[in-house]
Amino acid sequence: MPRKAFESEFEFVRWLRRMVPSKRGRLRLGLGDDAALFAVARGHELILTTDLFIEGVHYSRRLHPPRSVGHRALARSLSDIAAMGGTPRFALVSLAISKRTPRRWVEEFYAGLLGLAKRFGVTLIGGDTAVIAGPTGVDVIVCGEAPARRALLRSGARPGDHIFVSGRLGLSALGLRLLKRHRQAARSLAPARVRSAGVGDDALLAHLYPQPRCALGAFLARRRLASAMIDLSDGLSTDLAHLCAASGVGALLREERIPGPFRDQGVISQGHARNLALHGGEDYELLFAVPPRKVRQVPRQHRGVGLHCIGQIQSSKGLVLVRADGTKHSLQPGGWDHFRNRKG
Amino acid sequence: MPRKAFESEFEFVRWLRRMVPSKRGRLRLGLGDDAALFAVARGHELILTTDLFIEGVHYSRRLHPPRSVGHRALARSLSDIAAMGGTPRFALVSLAISKRTPRRWVEEFYAGLLGLAKRFGVTLIGGDTAVIAGPTGVDVIVCGEAPARRALLRSGARPGDHIFVSGRLGLSALGLRLLKRHRQAARSLAPARVRSAGVGDDALLAHLYPQPRCALGAFLARRRLASAMIDLSDGLSTDLAHLCAASGVGALLREERIPGPFRDQGVISQGHARNLALHGGEDYELLFAVPPRKVRQVPRQHRGVGLHCIGQIQSSKGLVLVRADGTKHSLQPGGWDHFRNRKG
Repeated sequence: MPRKAFESEFEFVRWLRRMVPSKRGRLRLGLGDDAALFAVARGHELILTTDLFIEGVHYSRRLHPPRSVGHRALARSLSDIAAMGGTPRFALVSLAISKRTPRRWVEEFYAGLLGLAKRFGVTLIGGDTAVIAGPTGVDVIVCGEAPARRALLRSGARPGDHIFVSGRLGLSALGLRLLKRHRQAARSLAPARVRSAGVGDDALLAHLYPQPRCALGAFLARRRLASAMIDLSDGLSTDLAHLCAASGVGALLREERIPGPFRDQGVISQGHARNLALHGGEDYELLFAVPPRKVRQVPRQHRGVGLHCIGQIQSSKGLVLVRADGTKHSLQPGGWDHFRNRKG
Repeated sequence: MPRKAFESEFEFVRWLRRMVPSKRGRLRLGLGDDAALFAVARGHELILTTDLFIEGVHYSRRLHPPRSVGHRALARSLSDIAAMGGTPRFALVSLAISKRTPRRWVEEFYAGLLGLAKRFGVTLIGGDTAVIAGPTGVDVIVCGEAPARRALLRSGARPGDHIFVSGRLGLSALGLRLLKRHRQAARSLAPARVRSAGVGDDALLAHLYPQPRCALGAFLARRRLASAMIDLSDGLSTDLAHLCAASGVGALLREERIPGPFRDQGVISQGHARNLALHGGEDYELLFAVPPRKVRQVPRQHRGVGLHCIGQIQSSKGLVLVRADGTKHSLQPGGWDHFRNRKG
């Protein structure tokens, strides 16, 4: 008899309801009925996104503490809302739990997920559960809002637009490598422990507890600064290619302007850092295009997160990388393909 | 190397977009961006539900043709919208595909899902995919609307209310038993084949291709006829217990009034039929409470689906079953518990 996480679905839902703040405002009905019910703010449109987060694909049981798994599963969907310039409001969580999962794992998973939800003002309003004979998997649905006609799509980039990214790229991929090196340490990593762990902190923190850029996305949408936006979940080269394909354009990137993971700490080589910045996934930073006349209105940073112009949209298809020595190279998407579960 | 369903996520999304009607009306953005975007009708509230549908838990690869799996996965969520009195509008589908799944299976799965979606006016607007080393699983999110303050909750039932159900109960559970008996025949069962298959048709059809009662649910909400409602997904005894728990009441059922699967065809014994009607799941019929003064306004049928009064809400907790001979028996929830994956 496998060790069950909870005695029954009823017991699980009762436990979960205790963990979730009660309904308020425009939420009429949260957990526990057939479906959730809410009113959308006047003059706003609704944004819906859903993301799978599966053991063996998106996380490793050995490497990732359950608190981080819950955090990252929600961060992935919050980042999609950020990429539209929306504000996240509600979440639904469908959890298929492997038979061998102890209750403690489920509790820590929800602690990570609900902790992040709380900081972003997101209420858990529904979901589903099942116990399965396979790897644990979760589907996180997030529902957000944006003022009507202000949401930012992938398809609006035009030749001449400047390409910006937030934060530093490749940090999460570096964090994953550090985790693999120090597998033993990973088991007990909580945010506080990571913060005081010394060199590599930023990378570990970026990987285990990424911070979706919702405030930045909403700021850009509100001010109408960007013509197109996408979040960097699969890697710069892959996600920029998606944005370009949707907009029917190409792009030119200046390598030395791309904010890499470690430019001065010497933890990794320059070449390695460049590679991670170009192709490493799960940074959950934002990439956005800005029409030339609006470039001056883009601040150098937003709430402590740096904004960097790294290149320009051009009419000829494909991605071109300009190295520091001025040589041009074709850049192929080298990020994550979730269908193949490997680098493209 | 396992046989992959599609070459890449990009190819899969491209294939899917060809299968899905283009956006229209209040849908601003469907498949292919970071998230979907739409406006909610004025004076309406939004209803959100999500349901897992997993190989080995909710369906069997050997018993259920992929077209039925797609149909049932969506039907489950549509039924939740029906249970609130809402009208379904959009769906998102997160599909975690087992490595060994052939492309043909995925195509048939979506044919079943999208066929049902089309008949209910539901547009597929998003989702996620992953290839996994475990059983195939799908999470179906459906987004519906209801006029503000008209949605029907589980919690509104009051002592004295009459309890109604739609359709015939236990039909799906009987269909599953027939399927198990005729495993060989099941592989090629398409709706047309089922319809012309002779005795047991109704049961097979109810199991493989259930019809959510969205029109009935919306009718009851619009006319304000019901005080509470739930859909019968886990079995009458279990779902009625849920409704009673949410409303803080109990219920008395008259066994001879419960519309069972086969009252005159003799396919199964009377006792067996009664048992399936009380505890069999996945009928996706509606159970609703009606205040005494409104009982006369409830029609005998709605769009060909019979509506039957089977008992009454009472203030004393627990479920009581009154047999044909007048004897009273305590009725324990005996339906499906998805957390334990077995009968309760």
